[in-house]
Amino acid sequence: MVDKLKRQMGFIMEVDKLKEIFRQSIVSSGARYENDAEHSWHISLMAILLSEHANERVDVLRVVKMLLIHDIVEIDAGDTYNYDEEALLDKRQREEAAAERLFGLLPDEQRDEFMELWEEFEEKKTPEARYAAALDRLQPMLLNYMTQGKSWIDHGITSDMVFRKNRHIEDGSEALWDFAEEMLNDCIDRGYLKK
Amino acid sequence: MVDKLKRQMGFIMEVDKLKEIFRQSIVSSGARYENDAEHSWHISLMAILLSEHANERVDVLRVVKMLLIHDIVEIDAGDTYNYDEEALLDKRQREEAAAERLFGLLPDEQRDEFMELWEEFEEKKTPEARYAAALDRLQPMLLNYMTQGKSWIDHGITSDMVFRKNRHIEDGSEALWDFAEEMLNDCIDRGYLKK
Repeated sequence: MVDKLKRQMGFIMEVDKLKEIFRQSIVSSGARYENDAEHSWHISLMAILLSEHANERVDVLRVVKMLLIHDIVEIDAGDTYNYDEEALLDKRQREEAAAERLFGLLPDEQRDEFMELWEEFEEKKTPEARYAAALDRLQPMLLNYMTQGKSWIDHGITSDMVFRKNRHIEDGSEALWDFAEEMLNDCIDRGYLKK
Repeated sequence: MVDKLKRQMGFIMEVDKLKEIFRQSIVSSGARYENDAEHSWHISLMAILLSEHANERVDVLRVVKMLLIHDIVEIDAGDTYNYDEEALLDKRQREEAAAERLFGLLPDEQRDEFMELWEEFEEKKTPEARYAAALDRLQPMLLNYMTQGKSWIDHGITSDMVFRKNRHIEDGSEALWDFAEEMLNDCIDRGYLKK
């Protein structure tokens, strides 16, 4: 049992590095980029608050587990910007190797559980994974809204790209997609997002 | 339903500020202080991984909920360093006002649920709250271990203070306290923590 706990603690210390993996989103103060640990906290909290809006009944604990771990692979694979088509090509390959190394630090049973949760999140085939993916896509839009579209403008992102890349939110939650559409239209009206 | 969702989103956007509330812990890279959002992510993940070591059987989702929200009051009340005896005197008063304003942004039912969860965490009377509190105390020690005691040394913290302030970890998990004691003794041997 002591050995098992030491393996678990080894993993917990290693994943502290998630706090240094920066995303393209800017925090609401506008001062700096958001990191993966902060993002994971934010969407896990959203999962708890918004579960009534999921299209199907979801196991909230399973959703939260997925969201707490979904970006850990980026410690090795780096963050891939959702609008960077070239980097998206070998994303899967980079992330698989990362999952094996990082989750491999855990005791076998937990390694298998975390690999499964990560795969489930990536495949978006269960109600839990679709709802989790909806939150993962909605949250950066909220940050863009709060920072007057700073990240969209910096990267030359236009409204058709945002609508196309994020429409799958409706697979997890129609209510959240309705909210997102209204917010995006508001962003266009305010000049935060180019047509 | 649309109005309810808008209140929930208002809260979600407001609590983004947790990413700017800095603690006295230093992240493992040694580069900067940790913020509350990162800390909340880290201990929520620990809650999932380490639940088998809790003294009593715990409802893991309830523990994670507590941990995801336990520091939100610090958006208004600020972080109170666990070794700052003067600031600890009016901590409760500052945090109560903060809880009322911040959780008050939510729809009534969720405001009540979050107030209850926060109170439960603070009171440490349930197995869930005691296990949550153990994780909340253990994680800063891991960061001190990884940064050669930088935060302890900067603040002139000695081993008797650390043992006294953190012994309640054993109320939530004897296994985690055993691990912590061993790690603290190792920190003393290595010169990270003064006797």
